[in-house]
Amino acid sequence: MKSEHHTNNNMINLDCMCLKYYNGKLEVLDQTMLPHAEKWLIIDTAEDMYTAIKDLKVRGASFIGIAAGIYMVKYALESAPSIDNFCDTAKYLESSRPTAVHLSMTMQKMTKVARLEVKLNISHIVKIALQHYQEDIDVSLAIADYSSGLVSANSRILTYCNTGNLTGPGIGSAIGVIRNAHTTGKNISVYVSETRPLLQGSRLTAWEMAKLNIPFELICDNTAGYLMSRGLIDLVVVGADRIAYNGDVANKIGTYSLAVLAKYHNIPFYVAVSHTAFDCGAKVGSDIIIEQRSPIEVTNIVTGFANVQISVDNCTANNPAFDVTPHELITAYITDYGITHPKGNSQQEWERLFV
Amino acid sequence: MKSEHHTNNNMINLDCMCLKYYNGKLEVLDQTMLPHAEKWLIIDTAEDMYTAIKDLKVRGASFIGIAAGIYMVKYALESAPSIDNFCDTAKYLESSRPTAVHLSMTMQKMTKVARLEVKLNISHIVKIALQHYQEDIDVSLAIADYSSGLVSANSRILTYCNTGNLTGPGIGSAIGVIRNAHTTGKNISVYVSETRPLLQGSRLTAWEMAKLNIPFELICDNTAGYLMSRGLIDLVVVGADRIAYNGDVANKIGTYSLAVLAKYHNIPFYVAVSHTAFDCGAKVGSDIIIEQRSPIEVTNIVTGFANVQISVDNCTANNPAFDVTPHELITAYITDYGITHPKGNSQQEWERLFV
Repeated sequence: MKSEHHTNNNMINLDCMCLKYYNGKLEVLDQTMLPHAEKWLIIDTAEDMYTAIKDLKVRGASFIGIAAGIYMVKYALESAPSIDNFCDTAKYLESSRPTAVHLSMTMQKMTKVARLEVKLNISHIVKIALQHYQEDIDVSLAIADYSSGLVSANSRILTYCNTGNLTGPGIGSAIGVIRNAHTTGKNISVYVSETRPLLQGSRLTAWEMAKLNIPFELICDNTAGYLMSRGLIDLVVVGADRIAYNGDVANKIGTYSLAVLAKYHNIPFYVAVSHTAFDCGAKVGSDIIIEQRSPIEVTNIVTGFANVQISVDNCTANNPAFDVTPHELITAYITDYGITHPKGNSQQEWERLFV
Repeated sequence: MKSEHHTNNNMINLDCMCLKYYNGKLEVLDQTMLPHAEKWLIIDTAEDMYTAIKDLKVRGASFIGIAAGIYMVKYALESAPSIDNFCDTAKYLESSRPTAVHLSMTMQKMTKVARLEVKLNISHIVKIALQHYQEDIDVSLAIADYSSGLVSANSRILTYCNTGNLTGPGIGSAIGVIRNAHTTGKNISVYVSETRPLLQGSRLTAWEMAKLNIPFELICDNTAGYLMSRGLIDLVVVGADRIAYNGDVANKIGTYSLAVLAKYHNIPFYVAVSHTAFDCGAKVGSDIIIEQRSPIEVTNIVTGFANVQISVDNCTANNPAFDVTPHELITAYITDYGITHPKGNSQQEWERLFV
């Protein structure tokens, strides 16, 4: 984990696997080009940032909040905008992905602070951006630490989507758990589920596993049930985009199916997630808005390096980006505040951590 | 359904959506090129047939048996082989796909008949081939007929892989059920699951649905659970490659996960299948050999018209072609002999039909 930041008269310099900000130049790694190329995109305007997030070039629940926050710093420093313009821009970026909670939290926090002032105080904006950046590192290490007791030696772990070093300056959530088990010598191995339609598993997680030298096998999403039925999976660990007050989890489409399958096979199903993903505004999972994305992601294989039509012309498709896993299917949440369990299991424990 | 055959001195001429045999010239539709192109492959040698089956250019549980059978007719007519050579060729073709029962049944029936003779009697071979061809038509119509009572008006039906007019001269198994509901005015709609790795759902079933003018939406395989949780799927109907004596079903990888999800959501899960897929030689599902296919189908998107690497170089992958769905997850089998239920439900009913 290479990550640093310095402040000097509100100038900040940052460098992690998926973002560089140096002397006012902001660059993000185009994750749609992975694993074919490590291509960096220069982000000059709010439109650049919006499009990069919308098109999943910048992705990962917490990272899109961090990246948008750093763009707001750059914007404030360069343009010295009016408070109205600043807040409009924050709102615009917030609308790029409706489901992820970190993005809206960061944008709303900046808006709130700005609205309290007569003239935009840039040092407050920098402070929020850096807080979120540093928090991602601290949170990921705390999650990894707390997870130690849950992962036995020789575990065969199924993970989904991408939740590692490409999702922020930290070591990630679910991949952080895996990485911790690996580096502490537990001889684990990993099944990486490809995660259609955008293939974050095969394109990104497999790439991270290979870089980290963690033994893994790639599978199609429809293969997890078969492996479970053969006793080949000991635990499932995934991340989360947003968690409702009752513990229901919004995460990448397909998470729910894995949770049902894990329950059916009595396999522990863990959600590794920052406490910041808990959204008390959403009482239950069905309160969370599910983003519907373009049918072309399903009718075609769409990445930064290929676009192959795999179905008949003018094909209709249903493409929800997320699903909601009810809390009763979750064995435990591994958070930076500790391990906690679905609310139904222990109201007190839940409230101690999150309310 | 365009399909005809005539016999005249053992010359047979056949023509259906995926196979033509005319004046000794055998051609099969290259299904890996769909939906991009309707390309016909000339089959001259046993190696041509073997490779076409192995590479899924010729596919569909019953159709590969039919196609291999017709190749054996062509071979017998053209080469007048010794009985040993004839049987060796049948055995060779049988080895092209280990899981499908129809292929081995046809090849074994031809071998058995040939072994009873001193000199190969071609008319017996022709008879077996034509029987299987005609049976596919009759079976598909009977399955469709019997299914009528199970599909209510306005049903939203999930189907998987491809089980229609591309799998033989008949109207298909699961797609036959759908087609029957559509043509009898039941106002049904269909979710077509893409069926990774080889995308038989998006490439073939969507193509058939469009040709038949049946309303459908394509989904990624990981989306079925979400749709079920929202009450958007009324029933699931799939085909089967092989069914063990106890009713366990071997079918395309991913079928098992759908069956578990259907059970969890109390959604009927039907297997539409010819009685010939019931294999009394396999006592239980775990007796059925599961074909492991090349990792490249998972690490890449491989079709006849594209080969795109979607994961890191030298990626390992686990690629079972099939899985086994235990009989307790199956609501009913829709067969050409009638509707029957998992053996545990009614031993007598089962034995009346299949033993």
